[in-house]
This record gives sequence, structure tokens and C-alpha cells, in this order.
Amino acid sequence: MIYLDSAATSLWHPKEAEERMIQALRGCGNAGRGAHDATLDAGRIVFETRMRLAELFHAESPERIAFTCNDTEALNTAIFGLFGPGDHVITTVCEHNSVLRPLYALEKQGLELSVIPADVSGRIDYDQMEAAVRKNTKAFVVTHASNLTGNITDLARVCEIAEHHSLLLIVDAAQTAGILPINVQKSGIDVLCFSGHKGLLGPQGTGGIYVRPELSIRPLKMGGSGIRSYEKEQPAAMPEHLEAGTLNVHGIAGLLGALEYLEKTGIEMIYKRERELMHLFLEEIQGIPGLTLYGTDDLQQRVPTAALNIGSCDSGYVSDWLYENYGIAVRSGAHCAPLMHEALGTREQGAVRFSFSHVLTEEEVRIAAQALREFAEEEMQQ
Amino acid sequence: MIYLDSAATSLWHPKEAEERMIQALRGCGNAGRGAHDATLDAGRIVFETRMRLAELFHAESPERIAFTCNDTEALNTAIFGLFGPGDHVITTVCEHNSVLRPLYALEKQGLELSVIPADVSGRIDYDQMEAAVRKNTKAFVVTHASNLTGNITDLARVCEIAEHHSLLLIVDAAQTAGILPINVQKSGIDVLCFSGHKGLLGPQGTGGIYVRPELSIRPLKMGGSGIRSYEKEQPAAMPEHLEAGTLNVHGIAGLLGALEYLEKTGIEMIYKRERELMHLFLEEIQGIPGLTLYGTDDLQQRVPTAALNIGSCDSGYVSDWLYENYGIAVRSGAHCAPLMHEALGTREQGAVRFSFSHVLTEEEVRIAAQALREFAEEEMQQ
Repeated sequence: MIYLDSAATSLWHPKEAEERMIQALRGCGNAGRGAHDATLDAGRIVFETRMRLAELFHAESPERIAFTCNDTEALNTAIFGLFGPGDHVITTVCEHNSVLRPLYALEKQGLELSVIPADVSGRIDYDQMEAAVRKNTKAFVVTHASNLTGNITDLARVCEIAEHHSLLLIVDAAQTAGILPINVQKSGIDVLCFSGHKGLLGPQGTGGIYVRPELSIRPLKMGGSGIRSYEKEQPAAMPEHLEAGTLNVHGIAGLLGALEYLEKTGIEMIYKRERELMHLFLEEIQGIPGLTLYGTDDLQQRVPTAALNIGSCDSGYVSDWLYENYGIAVRSGAHCAPLMHEALGTREQGAVRFSFSHVLTEEEVRIAAQALREFAEEEMQQ
Repeated sequence: MIYLDSAATSLWHPKEAEERMIQALRGCGNAGRGAHDATLDAGRIVFETRMRLAELFHAESPERIAFTCNDTEALNTAIFGLFGPGDHVITTVCEHNSVLRPLYALEKQGLELSVIPADVSGRIDYDQMEAAVRKNTKAFVVTHASNLTGNITDLARVCEIAEHHSLLLIVDAAQTAGILPINVQKSGIDVLCFSGHKGLLGPQGTGGIYVRPELSIRPLKMGGSGIRSYEKEQPAAMPEHLEAGTLNVHGIAGLLGALEYLEKTGIEMIYKRERELMHLFLEEIQGIPGLTLYGTDDLQQRVPTAALNIGSCDSGYVSDWLYENYGIAVRSGAHCAPLMHEALGTREQGAVRFSFSHVLTEEEVRIAAQALREFAEEEMQQ
């Protein structure tokens, strides 16, 4: 199998991740519950992972990062925990359903929602973003990069508008954490939501939320916190405020191993390699009959993802053909980004998404491109 | 270390759990996203685990079980997803903060809450439970066994009252899933919440919620579902209705391995062994000076947990002494069950909880009892 679906989840995990998980599975207790070595070991793993994430994202301190079970939970926590009826929130057509569906649910309760359009290349119209600001606008909720086109959002621009109007900036880093450098302080990010199993190369069941100091989010879940058991409310202090119940220490241990690998290797080096592979792929598919490639042409403004279609072929048909004939694993259909598909005109057809991991070989990328060409030449002849 | 803290999390996991996790870590994609073998493998793991859980709890069908990241999330989903202002809910002093805190939060919004007391042994007053029923009573939310005393709730009795008054029965199985036989259909359980990392012997980051057919719970989280991407709401069909975002397939794979072990070994055999060990412990600690043992004397009505105190010694002091001198790992302090501590009169002192895994040896249990005796004899002499 040639796995070109890293934007969904990393199939490859560094050996450090596996080792850390096995070690945790053999000796970790419940973090923050009790004072024996099994719980203390668990606590140390959690703290060290939190610290490394804080360093990676340039957070003010480790406790500003709370763990969640995935990015979706982080986004739900931010959206339901910050907004209510009467608030106005601005988002974009590039967003994933993990942003849109919580916002739609709040819209039913009286939230006002503006959705900023994008052009046919999926590029956000930043001028409209500023024009959409109202008196009751509370925040921008934007993806750092589209999970469909791979287009990177101009966060500096969004931040500038947000700061000018004193709005919160909530960023979905599903496609960028571990891939692009992120500096929450410099970028004026108030809340950063991320998953641990994509660019961060950790196991599934991990993710998290960064919350700027002084900003408080109503917790989505309440329960045991290991501290202040007699209070009727979830403790106000981060990270316990957003971490109810037993943490996924076994998964977090795996994430720690992955972060160790990322630090050693350097996310810039990884991204450089991934961009090279994407570049190679884009070169190799040039001139394929019937090819429509989505997203910006400026490769500096893309994460290593290429979404495309061949003529009017159903995207699922293309991906099935690639897998059956060459074991090439890509994602097709709708990508939980309904408005992006509408902007691109691919609501019915879907799109075939190739996403690139740094552990792929050039040979594998060439095979994928060649297979796509073969498919297209056969189909377009008919 | 002699680990007597299994009620917090199982330190021991069957080799099947570790093997399944490693295997998943080396080849699993994102379940339900795409149609290549990596995602299909992930989907199969998720389905098989769901099926085994449905069998274990005698659910009508696998799709009535949704995965959550822990029991706390399952309980929050049930409580926030079923109740609102104007509803009356009956719970007990035996509950964990993962039940109480969500209910307190709703109480602030206009929910009416009755909390049924318990006697000094922590036994629920079932007559009061029935007497508390009002016109607007919607549900009982009860733990299947106290995480502090280990007392097992008489679910047959609660079910009878619930059915008589057409109330929902929501059960917290944190301390019983994988330990006691649970038959949701026979016991008239509408919602069962459980964790995967305690009696089920799986990894942390796992848990779930069973929801009776026809009953619909408003989802706590919304996002990608892999199906019906163009709908503005989370799909209505279970289990997707309660499963937004990428599942913890690596953790679920571990849980599958643990369930395979439980089936092979038989949860009755495991519970029998654990009760024998608890029995041995209770025999061995008889006559210890200053000993106060909480919970019912009827060992048939207890999960393998024994909470106690020595004179007026702070429970944390006792647990530290046991760990420092004999490597005995127990849990002390408050156990996220504030009302239970108040019922037992241990709000300040906390309690020292010994909980028993079937992989302990009798020798280890004897050492723990002997250590407690030594501590008590020294302390009580002073």
C-alpha cells in the first residue's frame, strides 16, 4: 500500500511513540489521582507532554494547554464554551464540520453567524472578513489550512483584523500542528485547537486546546479533577478546568514519543521533505487529461495536500481504481468540509485528496502520479 | 510495588491488549474515512469492539454503543443530552463528581435535583428514592457501585421504581463494567456509562455509552462523522450521533484485546478471585486498633474495594506511610465523591481505599494487611 492519506491520520508513527506507549501500558496509573509511583509516572508523562506542546506552540506556560481526545473536542469546547445567543461569529467556507456544526447548533439558539466566501481556488476573501465585523462580533474561527485544498490561511492578516476590532482569534490547526511553525503569542491566537494523530505523528485519541492566559472557556465536560473535590463546579484553574475525568495517559505517552521525534528531526525538515514530495507529484501529474487541481498555485501557501478530479469522474470511483490497481490509498468523496466543496463546485463529485508524509519515497510518489495518469488516459479516451 | 488502586485504573493489562495496540499503531488508518485497507482495518477494529461490548452488556445491537474517551464523557453526554430546565432528576449521595457536577451545572439553569441519602454504611435509602418522585421527574441517575465504599446498588429495586413511574434509568458502571454481569435489557437500563480502563482492563482514553433503542440523546460534540457531510446537524443515527471526530482507534484496539481476554477468562472467574482477595484482606485486618471500615458487611453486595481509616489519622498520611515503607499503592483523600464522604463523616479525613485486581497474589494482600496493622499499632499506641 502507498499511503497518501496522512491528512486523515498519520499511518506512520515514530518508534519513540510506540515505545512510550508500551512503557506506559506496563506501568502507568491514573494521572493526578494518588501519590504512588504509578500515578506519579502518569503525571510526569502528562506534564512533560504538556510542556513540549507549550514549547512547540510558544504558549506562555504548559498549563495553558489542556488535553482533549481529538481536535473536534477542542473545537467544540472553544465554540460552545465561548459563544452564546446574541454573539456574532465570523468563520469561513474553508472550515471543517467540527467548526461548522457546533456553530450551526448555536445559530439555532440565537448566535449570529457570518461565513466568509473563497474564490474558485479556495482562497479566503480577507477584505470581506473585515467588512463582516459588526458591533456584536466576538470572534474569528478559522482553519489554519484547509483539509481539502491544503491552502494555508494568512493568519497574520486575520490577526491584524482581529486585533484591530478586539476580536478573539480561534484557530483550527488540524492540518498544521506539527507541520507549520505555530507561535500563538506572535500570531495573536487566543485559542488553538489541534489533533495529535496527524502532523504531530502521535496516536489517535489525542489532541488538545491552547487557551490564552486570562481567557476562560466554560468547560464542555465536568467531573473528577483530582483536586478541589468538594467544589460543586469544575476547578477554575487550567488545565483541570478543561480536563474532566481520567486522561488518555497511554495515548499521551505515545504523543510524547512523537514530540521527541519531531524535536529531534525538526518540523521544518519534515515539512520541507513533504513539500518536495508534493512538488514532485504536482510536476508528474502535469498534463494529465481532464485534470482539475484545486487550491492555490503558490506551493509556499499549501500544506502537503493535493485535491483533484479527473473530468467528471466520481471521486470515489477514482480512489477505488487507484487502490484496486496500485494499492494507492487516498481519500475521496466529501471531506467533512461541505462549504468548501460548494465553493469549488464539487458537491456531487467530491474530490480525490492526496496527502504526503515525509516517510514516502519519491518512487512511491511517482507510482501514484503514473497510476493517476493511466486512469485518466483510459477514462478520457472513452 | 503492590498495586491496590485498580478502582482508579487497572495497572495490569492483558497481553492481548498490548498486542492489539501495537498492531493498530503499525497499520490503522482513520475509521470510517475512506475505503482503503488502513481505514477498513480501523473500521473493523471499531466494529468488533462495539460488538463485543454489546454482547457483554446484552445490548440490542452494536450500534447502540458509542465510544467516548472515558466514563466522565459518557455521563456528561447523558446528563447534558437528556435533561434541561424544568426537569426533575433523582440521584444519590453515592455519586462521583462526574455525575454531580453536570447535574449541579444544570441545576443552576433550572433543573430540579433530589439527592437520596445513604446510611452510615453508605447504603442508599431506596424508599426515599420512590418517595422523591414528582410529576416532572424524568430520571434516576445512579452509580452501579460506589467508588468509595464499593457498595453495589440494588439495580433491580431501582429499575422497579423507575418502570413503575416511567422514568429513565441512567447507570454509571465505572466500578462494575467488566466486574459484575450487566444486562441492560433485563435491568431496564436506558443509558449505561462505562470506562474502558478499569474493570474492562483496556487502555486509558477508552469508554462508552449504551443508549436504549428509540431513546435519543442530544450530542455533546459535533463534527466530522464520515457520513452525511452536507447535513448541518450531527447524523441522527447511532453510533455516529454521539461520535464526532476521529475515534481513538489505537485505544479501542487495546480495549478489544482486553475484551478478548475477559471473554476467555470469564468475568465471573475474575470477580470471584477478586472477592476472595478482598475477603482475605478483610479477615487479615480484623482487630486492627482504631480501624473503621466503610461500606456494607455483606461481601456479596460489594465490588472488590475496601475503604477504611485508622483512628483519626489523615488518610493521606496512612497511604504515604504504606507506600514509603512497603511500596503499597492505595488511594487516599477525597475520592471525587464529596457527598459520600459527608455521609460517612470523612470529609476532612478522607479515606484509604484498597481495591483488588485478580492478578494480585494472596501474599501481596497479606503484606498489605500486615503493613496496615503495623501502622495502626504504632499510631494507636502514641
